[in-house]
Amino acid sequence: MEILNDEYYMRLALNMADGASGQTGVNPVVGCVVVKDGRIVGLGAHLKRGEGHAEVHALDMAGDQARGATAYVTLEPCSHYGRTPPCCERLIEEGVSRVVVAASDPNPLVAGRGIARLREAGIEVLTGVLESEAALQNEAFNKFILTGLPFVTLKTALSLDGRIATRTGHSRWITGAAAREAVHTLRHRHAGIMVGLQTVLADDPELTTRLDVPALHPTRIVVDSGLRLPLTARVLNDAAPTIVLTTVQADEDRAERLRERGAEVLRCGDGERVDLAAAMRELGRRDIGSVLLEGGGVLNGAMLQAGLVDKTMLIYAPIIVGGEGAPSAFSYVGPEEMSAALRLSRVSMQSFGDDWCVTGYPDNRAAGAAAEAAAEAEPNGSAAKEGS
Amino acid sequence: MEILNDEYYMRLALNMADGASGQTGVNPVVGCVVVKDGRIVGLGAHLKRGEGHAEVHALDMAGDQARGATAYVTLEPCSHYGRTPPCCERLIEEGVSRVVVAASDPNPLVAGRGIARLREAGIEVLTGVLESEAALQNEAFNKFILTGLPFVTLKTALSLDGRIATRTGHSRWITGAAAREAVHTLRHRHAGIMVGLQTVLADDPELTTRLDVPALHPTRIVVDSGLRLPLTARVLNDAAPTIVLTTVQADEDRAERLRERGAEVLRCGDGERVDLAAAMRELGRRDIGSVLLEGGGVLNGAMLQAGLVDKTMLIYAPIIVGGEGAPSAFSYVGPEEMSAALRLSRVSMQSFGDDWCVTGYPDNRAAGAAAEAAAEAEPNGSAAKEGS
Repeated sequence: MEILNDEYYMRLALNMADGASGQTGVNPVVGCVVVKDGRIVGLGAHLKRGEGHAEVHALDMAGDQARGATAYVTLEPCSHYGRTPPCCERLIEEGVSRVVVAASDPNPLVAGRGIARLREAGIEVLTGVLESEAALQNEAFNKFILTGLPFVTLKTALSLDGRIATRTGHSRWITGAAAREAVHTLRHRHAGIMVGLQTVLADDPELTTRLDVPALHPTRIVVDSGLRLPLTARVLNDAAPTIVLTTVQADEDRAERLRERGAEVLRCGDGERVDLAAAMRELGRRDIGSVLLEGGGVLNGAMLQAGLVDKTMLIYAPIIVGGEGAPSAFSYVGPEEMSAALRLSRVSMQSFGDDWCVTGYPDNRAAGAAAEAAAEAEPNGSAAKEGS
Repeated sequence: MEILNDEYYMRLALNMADGASGQTGVNPVVGCVVVKDGRIVGLGAHLKRGEGHAEVHALDMAGDQARGATAYVTLEPCSHYGRTPPCCERLIEEGVSRVVVAASDPNPLVAGRGIARLREAGIEVLTGVLESEAALQNEAFNKFILTGLPFVTLKTALSLDGRIATRTGHSRWITGAAAREAVHTLRHRHAGIMVGLQTVLADDPELTTRLDVPALHPTRIVVDSGLRLPLTARVLNDAAPTIVLTTVQADEDRAERLRERGAEVLRCGDGERVDLAAAMRELGRRDIGSVLLEGGGVLNGAMLQAGLVDKTMLIYAPIIVGGEGAPSAFSYVGPEEMSAALRLSRVSMQSFGDDWCVTGYPDNRAAGAAAEAAAEAEPNGSAAKEGS
């Protein structure tokens, strides 16, 4: 049982926001609870980009009871005219007397102005209640709004000894049913899902979201420097949009054939391999604010080395595979010294059935330095392996 | 705060037993709490092989107050005359009216007879209170008493991608200070510590227990088929006994030189490599009831494949090393199919500073089958790699 206090209501608002994760596009998730005289009188969450904000839904539900009430909002109310009118003005109009905010909005168009506007209007504002939970909930939005780049979550299933397949290449299945359902939930919560050509050739995956309830499918992104993606690949079916990342060098006839199959072909860089950093910029321009990277060892390694991975979710099955040649989860030229290994911070654990997910955040400044060192050590190594 | 009940006192008895872990040799750890009229009147633990049992210490402390009291014992009281008189008779003599037992004693000399004897004498006996905790505490004893073989715990520090060194062989340090202190605590709690020759040649470790408080050193065991251990190796110093495992083929002059340095040389098997199963039997005969295996990838892999590892403690640093050639924690010819990978059961997690320890129990029936399959696939593979 929770204690009834500001955090109690804010947690409810955070839960509503979390529930809508994946369905607001490049907008943040936001929840709002309006409370009057000891009763919840309004509940709301932002559900779809271009539609009502959390505060609007909650205030609509509260009606006249909003006057003199307290509004709990997980993100600082907006103060600018965007796709919808500013929520600050609505809170003021309705006569709300107190607003409790979890996180301030990093969006340069808001960034403290929402809170200032409310205070100017005489409303009592308390900030920072469950702030870190709220910031975590919008970690993808927070990166995208400031950089225009998607937030990349690398997810891989692996054995306790870091293998993603046996020495013969056999890989189905490493983890159990509960972990696989968690992965499909991650797909629902991301705007894009990214793999390398090798994965498509090996498994012919559809890369859609398959759960017991209907769910959203992310845009499928295939890294394919040589445009060798088979036209019959399931990833080209009409279940979801597909983007093929390739280079300026790739054959235009082949690109045209892929376009006829409904794919968008994006040329990133003029080298032999896809310029992954450029690719992230292109995806961001297309409003893909979050990418779930489900690559094999080479693509995962290249993305890590390029400092393009924001978060890792490593799902360990309780198995040891052995086999010196067995494919590894991260295939790149590593550092010489252990102290130069890529370090994760804010590491946490969660179990899915018999499997354990280790979540962490790579230190991407260190990743850049390690990539430079490795490139010096072996000029044709990791850099040349980028992409598929 | 805990609720005052039978478990409350049993947990205290388990805590005392746990504290003595490592100092009772091949004897089990046992704790005892005597309670009379709502007060603890006696506390005891078995502290050293050949000296007083837990019940004796606790009853000595209780004195006259034992009459009509309840005794909580983590292990079934012994009923046979061994190195000390049977504890059952002492409990009966002192007039204890109720005995609460956590785990029954798997020792064929006890195995239920202690409990039966108490009941015959009119004492009320309750069994099974915190039984699984008690069994876990004596998992090494439970194996040793039934098989004569040491309980082997494989401990390794590794990166999240399963590496124990970088591509250049650099390995210090993978984990942090808290994890290293935990490892030294494990050394204190084991009768033997086992490594391969390669580890000695690479690091020249002393393999002693180094902590902020004085601690016990395990017997050092080096797997060295060719007796190439340098006579100046620190593992031969007089801090603790040393056993060198080798084969019948190894040079006798060399063995004699090692004996002069204080080591015992044990010849296990007549092949090129140490027969690890035979080695475990020899160690058991020398009352080494528990072994902490701190091998490199090859020895760890060979022990796992031979089904000789009872428990694994994998301590992950929050780092990714990459590097295709970087040494792996388990170096053996793995299975073809993912479903044939070695599976761990009863997996649990514990954090040490920034590092995470994954504890599990390999399914050794599966290990045997996998070893056979691998041997068929590559007759000169894993079997020939056994030992160092």
